Amino acid sequence: MKHILVIGAGRSATSLLEYLKRYVLQAPVRLTIADAEPGLARQKAGDQPHERIASTGLDIFKQEELWDHIRQADVVISMVPAHFHIHVVKGCLYHKKHMLSASYVSEEIRQLDAQAREADILILKECGLDPGIDHMTAMEALDRIRTEGGTLTAFRSYTGGLVAPESDTNPWGYKFSWNPRNVVLAGQGVARYLRNGEYKYVPYHRLFSRVEQIELEGYAPFEGYPNRDSLGYRSLYGIDEIPTLIRGTLRKRGYCQAWNALVQLGMTDDSFQMQGLGQMRLRDFTNAFLAYDPELGVEEKFCRLMGIDQASELYNRIAWLGLFSKDPLPLQQGSPAQVLQAILEEKWKLEPQDKDMVVMQHIFDWQQQGVQKRLYSSLVSLGDDQLHTAMAKTVGWPLAIAARLLVEGKLERRGVCIPVTPDLYQPILKELRELGIQFSEREEVLNAEAAKR
Amino acid sequence: MKHILVIGAGRSATSLLEYLKRYVLQAPVRLTIADAEPGLARQKAGDQPHERIASTGLDIFKQEELWDHIRQADVVISMVPAHFHIHVVKGCLYHKKHMLSASYVSEEIRQLDAQAREADILILKECGLDPGIDHMTAMEALDRIRTEGGTLTAFRSYTGGLVAPESDTNPWGYKFSWNPRNVVLAGQGVARYLRNGEYKYVPYHRLFSRVEQIELEGYAPFEGYPNRDSLGYRSLYGIDEIPTLIRGTLRKRGYCQAWNALVQLGMTDDSFQMQGLGQMRLRDFTNAFLAYDPELGVEEKFCRLMGIDQASELYNRIAWLGLFSKDPLPLQQGSPAQVLQAILEEKWKLEPQDKDMVVMQHIFDWQQQGVQKRLYSSLVSLGDDQLHTAMAKTVGWPLAIAARLLVEGKLERRGVCIPVTPDLYQPILKELRELGIQFSEREEVLNAEAAKR
Repeated sequence: MKHILVIGAGRSATSLLEYLKRYVLQAPVRLTIADAEPGLARQKAGDQPHERIASTGLDIFKQEELWDHIRQADVVISMVPAHFHIHVVKGCLYHKKHMLSASYVSEEIRQLDAQAREADILILKECGLDPGIDHMTAMEALDRIRTEGGTLTAFRSYTGGLVAPESDTNPWGYKFSWNPRNVVLAGQGVARYLRNGEYKYVPYHRLFSRVEQIELEGYAPFEGYPNRDSLGYRSLYGIDEIPTLIRGTLRKRGYCQAWNALVQLGMTDDSFQMQGLGQMRLRDFTNAFLAYDPELGVEEKFCRLMGIDQASELYNRIAWLGLFSKDPLPLQQGSPAQVLQAILEEKWKLEPQDKDMVVMQHIFDWQQQGVQKRLYSSLVSLGDDQLHTAMAKTVGWPLAIAARLLVEGKLERRGVCIPVTPDLYQPILKELRELGIQFSEREEVLNAEAAKR
Repeated sequence: MKHILVIGAGRSATSLLEYLKRYVLQAPVRLTIADAEPGLARQKAGDQPHERIASTGLDIFKQEELWDHIRQADVVISMVPAHFHIHVVKGCLYHKKHMLSASYVSEEIRQLDAQAREADILILKECGLDPGIDHMTAMEALDRIRTEGGTLTAFRSYTGGLVAPESDTNPWGYKFSWNPRNVVLAGQGVARYLRNGEYKYVPYHRLFSRVEQIELEGYAPFEGYPNRDSLGYRSLYGIDEIPTLIRGTLRKRGYCQAWNALVQLGMTDDSFQMQGLGQMRLRDFTNAFLAYDPELGVEEKFCRLMGIDQASELYNRIAWLGLFSKDPLPLQQGSPAQVLQAILEEKWKLEPQDKDMVVMQHIFDWQQQGVQKRLYSSLVSLGDDQLHTAMAKTVGWPLAIAARLLVEGKLERRGVCIPVTPDLYQPILKELRELGIQFSEREEVLNAEAAKR
């Protein structure tokens, strides 16, 4: 009997595990849920677990224990933090078991491609939401346009993990539905993309002022800022000659301008430990990033730096975070980014009744028989509740589906892969649609003027 | 007979070696000049070397060779790049020889203090210009103010390696008199200082807009931007309670505003390799850091980003670098900072007839019997020619003097030290004054209003 092992049973594994538990009820398959905390694994297995569903504690740093579990499985899904995947991969290579994860292929893992082919296993990475569903839906559309004879001129793609409109109760239009630390540090380094044949490099301190406006019918307007390296997607997607290529992160409109203020202040710096935090209130923390001026208050100095007044939306967003208040700091030591994160975790908390929302939009431009066309392909996925979040569903289901397909012998590809080929993306997307992860499409014909942009 | 070994005979060792060669003519002392290039060492020893002056090739990565030379010496001066000093220090500890250098004490070397005391040797670091003369002259004044009963309220100190007024022939008021790479990367990371009791943290992208105006009688006005970590100088100088403490780098006025434009563009980023450089002219390189806009030229986009017009001094400085020209790029691959450095090396070259200039200014504020006082202590040192630069003199002479004092048994301190104690700074400063490295002082009484700043 085939046996699926899931390592890591945290919040992001909720929908993945529920899919697999339903699958066990329908098919002669075993499922083992492993986690560093045995209690969490047991809880996720359910109160009255099925005889083919087991839970176990597992310390992935104990190789013998890890490898023993891998040896007993046929397909291993790793939900551990990205930089620990290599331990799981090595065990899967040794015991010749398929391995799936949602995180990026590291160079170290890419090097193992030949070994994985030799072991006749599939190591499928980047099979979650972003990366994952973005690859699959982009490649499906790109392949279709190319098959129909179109010549691609632009590909832009934005994804955001946001809060559902009904739960959107703060001036930022944002709450944490994912790792807060990643949100605070997002975009550090340089962003690189192509625009009409021109290479564009955006330093971090200008990233949040280089935004694109994004519209989605029925929703308040969005904006997107460019992600770190869009250039690498040319070879990944087979679009080496494309003149415009931008991938980015999507936020509610107004977020980026206000976040930019925090970047300008230096509050997202994670490179050093601040001194003197013990004596600071929130407004003193803010003041530490502003020039000394005994004539002006913190509010005035902030407004002068940003060139705004206190009636502005930008000011309102910063003030709403309490950054001009006399409240105590939530941390007495740490980097600016750690202090800011602690402040935001109080303010941007997803409440028990809140729902999250995942939004993705691809925009493809191409020429076909002299006509310039554009396709908007958009996904909005809403969470059901705090457990069954849109994030958990869109990250977990592609992995769960891939596991099922492997168990059923329906995926023949081997080696270290990401889901950019039809044999992988077609069956996964087909079932995602049945689960409600459905992109809406809108195509338009551009005139010559608009085509240049 | 006492024997001084100098390791590293490059440009910055010129004045150091000439001092020591003169000393050999007057005293029963031997000097060995060692360099990775034997020809350079031989050249620095002179055409008809004195019988007590020797030169040798020396590969500091061959421990046996290095240690054999150290074994034969009494005092070793290391002019090798900062991160290689540890090799020399270890040899000096083993053979119990004094060691001098101009670079910063690393944590690794600081840990060797007890061993150095046990070996009865002095490892004197930070004994050049900055660090070096700055420590000595600051501590001399601080000790004097404290001895006279003053309570320090502020210490600000700025140093710059610049071009002499007579050789100042470009709109930046700057030419390279020191390592160009260090100039291009200067200030990366966060700057930290204290201002009237407030901790101040300045992110890199705002560093060059947070400048202080600095005046020096008889010279065109200067400005200073804060150096990375001023806070560490509280314990170093024994001024833990001081409310204002800023150390910075000095430039001709206008430089920082224009350099800030390069930082804003992202041209000083050294963290990634650019793509597409082969097809770029200088203006395309600039354009890669500006947003796409088919309606505007590179010049217009730059002016809009910076909020300036083309008649401004800022625009003139950037244009003078050729950044809007159709000239080819000097490099076909590299990081933005590497490309920028190659551009600047052509533009900011110190010509054969040019002279350099070192400027240092300390500003001390203190209270004494109810009166608020301020002392400006300023150094201007001019180079004689391209070999005997102000930089070579001010870096090399303190080391040479310390070596002479050690040979003559006049320095009794042992362990890992920097020159912040009177037994070290007094005799070195005394002789520096005789060599013309002389600070001018101006003291003024501040009124209550000015005292607050």
